[in-house]
Amino acid sequence: MPLRIESVSFDAEDPLMQGRFWSAVLGWEHGIDEDGDVWVEPGLGHPDNGLVRPLLFLAVPEPKATKNRIHLDLRPDDQDAEVDRLESLGAARVSVGQDGTEGWIVLADPEGNEFCVLGES
Amino acid sequence: MPLRIESVSFDAEDPLMQGRFWSAVLGWEHGIDEDGDVWVEPGLGHPDNGLVRPLLFLAVPEPKATKNRIHLDLRPDDQDAEVDRLESLGAARVSVGQDGTEGWIVLADPEGNEFCVLGES
Repeated sequence: MPLRIESVSFDAEDPLMQGRFWSAVLGWEHGIDEDGDVWVEPGLGHPDNGLVRPLLFLAVPEPKATKNRIHLDLRPDDQDAEVDRLESLGAARVSVGQDGTEGWIVLADPEGNEFCVLGES
Repeated sequence: MPLRIESVSFDAEDPLMQGRFWSAVLGWEHGIDEDGDVWVEPGLGHPDNGLVRPLLFLAVPEPKATKNRIHLDLRPDDQDAEVDRLESLGAARVSVGQDGTEGWIVLADPEGNEFCVLGES
């Protein structure tokens, strides 16, 4: 494999806060490396351990300025229950032009990064 | 698993062109669904088949406007050779404030989405 995805990396004003949010969202673990970068990845007991690539949160000085060009789509077992849970964790519903009939729900994380909660598979 | 990453999704002015580029970058396959969305994922013979989540390119009318908040980090076997190969595929070196001593190289895909080619592991 000449080239492999190592991580999906997010600029963050507060990498630790973002890492805590996303580890709660996905049921993954988080840790900080010597540079202050925060990793979020499936822990030893998680079915995706060693399989799914981690998320990485990197400190930047500037806040998010516009709708992201790249986002995560998340598949729930129960869309309504998951959206309720995510809102309780600090996610907020946002509008990016969807009309509400698409079947997915658009949320943003605490720093405004948009993501979608799809319908049940 | 109450919530799982389904895909890493990119807004794209030309999803098919972007899908072709990224399938060449990663050695993955691409396909178009009935909505015109373009999937890029490891094919049957690829070691990551069924493991790594796909990339999804979704048509949007607006071009990229600012540095992306989210990017992919890619791990090469041979950084110099991979950067040459990526440039031949249509990637371009870009500056996002790196000073060139970090060990990684920042490129952008044909629509300007930044990504990093890390040093050899």
